[in-house]
Amino acid sequence: MTETETTGGRRTGGRAGRQAARMQAAAPRVPYLTRTMTPFEALTEEGLSLIEHNADTVLEQVGIDFRDTPDALRLFKDAGAEIDGERVRFPRGLARQLVQASAPSQFTQVARNRANDVVIGGTNTVFAPAYGPPFVRDLDDGRRYGTIEDFRNFVKLTYLTPFLHHSGGTVCEPVDLPVNKRHYDMVYAHMRYSDKAFMGSVTHPRRAKDTVEMARILFGADFLEEHTVVVSLANANSPMVWDSTMLGAAKAYAEANQAVLVTPFILAGAMSPTTVAGAAAQTLAEALAGMAFCQLVRPGAPVILGSFASSMSMQSGAPTFGTPEPALILYTMASLARRLGVPFRSGGALTASKIADAQAAYESANTMQPTILGGVNSVLHTAGWLEGGLSMGYEKFILDVDQAAAWHSFVAGVDLTPNGQALDALLTNEPGTHFLGHAHTLANFETAFWRSTNADNASFEQWDAEGAKDANVRANETWKRMLAEYEPPPIDDAVDEELREYIDRKKASFPDSNA
Amino acid sequence: MTETETTGGRRTGGRAGRQAARMQAAAPRVPYLTRTMTPFEALTEEGLSLIEHNADTVLEQVGIDFRDTPDALRLFKDAGAEIDGERVRFPRGLARQLVQASAPSQFTQVARNRANDVVIGGTNTVFAPAYGPPFVRDLDDGRRYGTIEDFRNFVKLTYLTPFLHHSGGTVCEPVDLPVNKRHYDMVYAHMRYSDKAFMGSVTHPRRAKDTVEMARILFGADFLEEHTVVVSLANANSPMVWDSTMLGAAKAYAEANQAVLVTPFILAGAMSPTTVAGAAAQTLAEALAGMAFCQLVRPGAPVILGSFASSMSMQSGAPTFGTPEPALILYTMASLARRLGVPFRSGGALTASKIADAQAAYESANTMQPTILGGVNSVLHTAGWLEGGLSMGYEKFILDVDQAAAWHSFVAGVDLTPNGQALDALLTNEPGTHFLGHAHTLANFETAFWRSTNADNASFEQWDAEGAKDANVRANETWKRMLAEYEPPPIDDAVDEELREYIDRKKASFPDSNA
Repeated sequence: MTETETTGGRRTGGRAGRQAARMQAAAPRVPYLTRTMTPFEALTEEGLSLIEHNADTVLEQVGIDFRDTPDALRLFKDAGAEIDGERVRFPRGLARQLVQASAPSQFTQVARNRANDVVIGGTNTVFAPAYGPPFVRDLDDGRRYGTIEDFRNFVKLTYLTPFLHHSGGTVCEPVDLPVNKRHYDMVYAHMRYSDKAFMGSVTHPRRAKDTVEMARILFGADFLEEHTVVVSLANANSPMVWDSTMLGAAKAYAEANQAVLVTPFILAGAMSPTTVAGAAAQTLAEALAGMAFCQLVRPGAPVILGSFASSMSMQSGAPTFGTPEPALILYTMASLARRLGVPFRSGGALTASKIADAQAAYESANTMQPTILGGVNSVLHTAGWLEGGLSMGYEKFILDVDQAAAWHSFVAGVDLTPNGQALDALLTNEPGTHFLGHAHTLANFETAFWRSTNADNASFEQWDAEGAKDANVRANETWKRMLAEYEPPPIDDAVDEELREYIDRKKASFPDSNA
Repeated sequence: MTETETTGGRRTGGRAGRQAARMQAAAPRVPYLTRTMTPFEALTEEGLSLIEHNADTVLEQVGIDFRDTPDALRLFKDAGAEIDGERVRFPRGLARQLVQASAPSQFTQVARNRANDVVIGGTNTVFAPAYGPPFVRDLDDGRRYGTIEDFRNFVKLTYLTPFLHHSGGTVCEPVDLPVNKRHYDMVYAHMRYSDKAFMGSVTHPRRAKDTVEMARILFGADFLEEHTVVVSLANANSPMVWDSTMLGAAKAYAEANQAVLVTPFILAGAMSPTTVAGAAAQTLAEALAGMAFCQLVRPGAPVILGSFASSMSMQSGAPTFGTPEPALILYTMASLARRLGVPFRSGGALTASKIADAQAAYESANTMQPTILGGVNSVLHTAGWLEGGLSMGYEKFILDVDQAAAWHSFVAGVDLTPNGQALDALLTNEPGTHFLGHAHTLANFETAFWRSTNADNASFEQWDAEGAKDANVRANETWKRMLAEYEPPPIDDAVDEELREYIDRKKASFPDSNA
C-alpha cells in the first residue's frame, strides 16, 4: 500500500508531476481490516440449515412481489421461476443457485486513489460512515436539516481519517438542494473532496445512470467494464416486495458491472415476524431474490447480502438499537452469508439516542461488537449515526471513528511471535520488579497498546483542572480542527472540468423538483 | 427457583410464619445467566498450548515469591516444589496438577435467601457490582469520598435489581469508618440489607476470620463446613509475588471451605510485559500458584481463576480500559481457564472516564462484550465502575445494570422452536402487508424484545419536549426512586441480634486505627 496512483485507468496527463508532488500531502491511510479470528456463531450448522430451509419455503410458497418491473418478471420466468401477476415464486433452491452460479465471493472496489481500493468479502471488513440522515447535529448549533455544506464536511472528515476506508454515500441529505438534482452534488463531493471509494444514487434509475456516467468520466468508460468503482444500496420494500425504484437503480448498476448492496430493511414486528429466526429467514429470502435479479441482469456483477434489522419499543413502536435481538439477527445473517458465499453487509454504530451520550455509546458498541465478531465485510453507519438514522452527529462521528480505530488493533489478534510471547522478558525479570524499565518494554512500548484520540485517561484532578470536558466536548474540538486543516486530494484538472460540465449540462436540461 | 428459604441451614424459629409473609415483598429476581452459545476464541488450541507451556516455563525457571508466608513454603515443599528462600519454583506441570487434583470445576455459593444461590462455573455467568472504589459520584454532589451510607446504598440498589445476582464486596470504601473496623459494617450491610450472596474482607487475615465468624452466625457453623457462603478476592502482587496479607486471607477462607478469587491484577507494561501473550502467560502462572496454595490448604476448597488486565496510556502511564489488548487477554484467559477446568472471573463495565459519558459507555461495553462472549463465570465490576475503579457512580450503576439486563436476553440465543421460527407467520402474511396485526406478532409482542429501562427511544420532538434528558439525568431519577422504595429483606431477629452483638464485642476489644 505504498503506491499512490490517481484516477484508476485514466491518464493523468501533463500535470502528472505536479499532482504527484501534491499527492504527498494526501491523508494518512491504513488498510481496511483483515480479521484473523474465527467469527462468533450464534447458531449451529443445524440451526442455520433450518433457517435456509424456511427461506426456501417462503420463496416457494409465498414468493416475492416485483412491482412495476416487467423486465424482472421476464428474467425470472426465463430462469424457471413461477410468475403469477407480479408475484414471483421460486422453486426450492432456485434463488440460491442463481446467486451461487455467478456472484463473486469477494470483489475489489476501485478508488480513484488506488491505494484506497477496498476488497469486499472474505475476512475483510471495510468501514464507511453513516448513510441517509436528513438531519445533522453538533454541540454548537444542535439539530438542524443537513445541507450540501454538511455533506461535504462529512466527506472531508471521512477522507481525513484513516480508520474509515470508504467515503460512503448519503452521509447526510443535502436538504437545501432540489431532490431531483442533489445527487449530482453528492456524487461530485465524493469524487472531488475525497479519493476513497464511494456509493452512488439509488433514488431513481436515472440518477443511478448519472452516477455511472460520472464514474465513467472519472475512471474512464473502458475501465468500468472491467472494474467495480461504485457500490450502491438497494433496500427491499419488506415484507417480500421489491419495487421499481430500488430495482431500477440496482439494474442500472448491475448492467454496468457495478456492485449492489441488496439489503432488506427490517423493523422486526412490523416488516417481519418479531422473532430472530423469523426475521432472518425473511431477510435471506428477500436478499436471495434481489441478488438473483442482479445475477440475471449481468452474471458476475458484484452483490453484497445486506441485513439491517432493528427491534421495536413495545411502548411506542419506535425502532430500538443496540439491543440483543438485532445482534442475534446480525450473527445469524453473517453465518448465512458465509454459507452462501457472498460478501455481507450489516451493523454500524447504531443508536436511538438523540445525542452522543452514554445511551448512544452503549448501543453503538453493542452493534459494532457483533459487526466485527460476526465477520461483517461491509459496514455502513460506522460513524456519525444518531436518532435511529435521522441525524448525523459531528461529535458522534468523531467518537465512532475513534472506536473504528480500535478495531484495527483488535482484529490483528494475539501476537504469538517470540516478541509477542515475551518469554525472554518473563524469564529475565525478577519477581516484584516492575517491567517499565525492561528492554522488552522499552522496545515495545510505543506500539504495544492502541491509543485513543478521544478518551481521557488522566487523573480526576488533572481532568478537572483542564475543564472537566466530557467526550463530546473533546470530539467537538477534534472535528473543527480536522476541517480547518483539510486540504482536498489532487484531481486531474481536465477530469474535474469534464465532471463539472456534465453536471451543469444535466442540471440545465430539466427543471428543479422536490419529487 | 420458586422456593424462598431464609438463612441456609439455620433454624428460623417461631417467627418463621411472620417472616415468610414478609418474604413475599422480596425484591424481584431472575436467574443468573446460563449461556447457550459457544464462546468466542481469540486463539487456536495451538496458541493456547504455547501460552500454557510458557507459564510452566516461568513457574519452573523463575518461580514465585511467597513473602512472609512460611506455612506456604512448607506446603509447597511437601508438594514437591523447589524452595529457595521465599522463592517457590514448580517442576513443570506441578501447579496445574495440584489445581486439577481437587479444585471443583463449579460450585454453589449459597445466599441466605436460597432462591439467590449462584452456581459459579460451567456455562453460568454471575453479575456482581463494582468492587473497591474509595470515591463515589452522583450528578447532584459530584465526586466525594465514599461513606458507609453510600456502601449501604449500593448494597440496597444491588438487592433491588434482579440483574445483579450477587451483592459483591467492597461496593465502595466507607472512608468515614476506621480502616481496622469498617469490615464489620461492610459485611453486616451485605448480610442485613440484602439476601444475595456476598464477598468477605481480605485486607487482613483477622478480618477474613471475622467474616467467616459472622457467616457462621448467619448460616450456622455446621452449614459452612459443607457449603460455600463467602467468595473473596485475593490479588497477586504482580509480577510473581504473593504476599502475606492476601495469602493469609485466602488461607483463612480456604480453611473454612469458602471460595477464593485468585486474581493477578495486571497493568500491562508495568506489572507484566506489554504483550497479550506475555501478560496471559504471567497471569496463568501467578494464578496457578495461588490456586495451588488454596488446594494445599484444603483440597476441594473452591477457587476461581481471575484475570484483571488493563492496557496503559503511553502518554501518562495511566491504566486504560475498553481497549483491544485487555479484551484479547480476557478472551485468552477465559479459554485457558476452561482448559484448566476451573471457574473464571474477569471483565465488568470498566472505564477510565471520570463521568458516565460516551467514553465510559463505549469502554464499558467493550469490556462487557468479551466478558459475555468469552464466557466469564464470575463478573465483578458489572455496575458502577468509573475512573479506573477509583469512583463508584450512582448513575453509572443504573446505566450498567440496564446493560446487564440486556445480556440476559442475548445469552438465551436464537429461539428455534416453531414459534421462534415463525414459519406459519411468514407463510400466512401477504407481501407488502405489515406484521403488526398478525396473530403471531400479537402473541409475541409483549416478550419479543428486551426492554431497556433507561434508553430513550422516543422521537426527537417528544424527547425534546420532555426536557431533552440525557442518559445520566434519567439514571439519576431511577436510583433515587429505587432507594426511596427500598425495604430490607426479612432476617431472623435472633440472628440479627447475634450478629450485632458479635460486632459490638469485637469493635470494643481493640482501639480504632486507620492502618
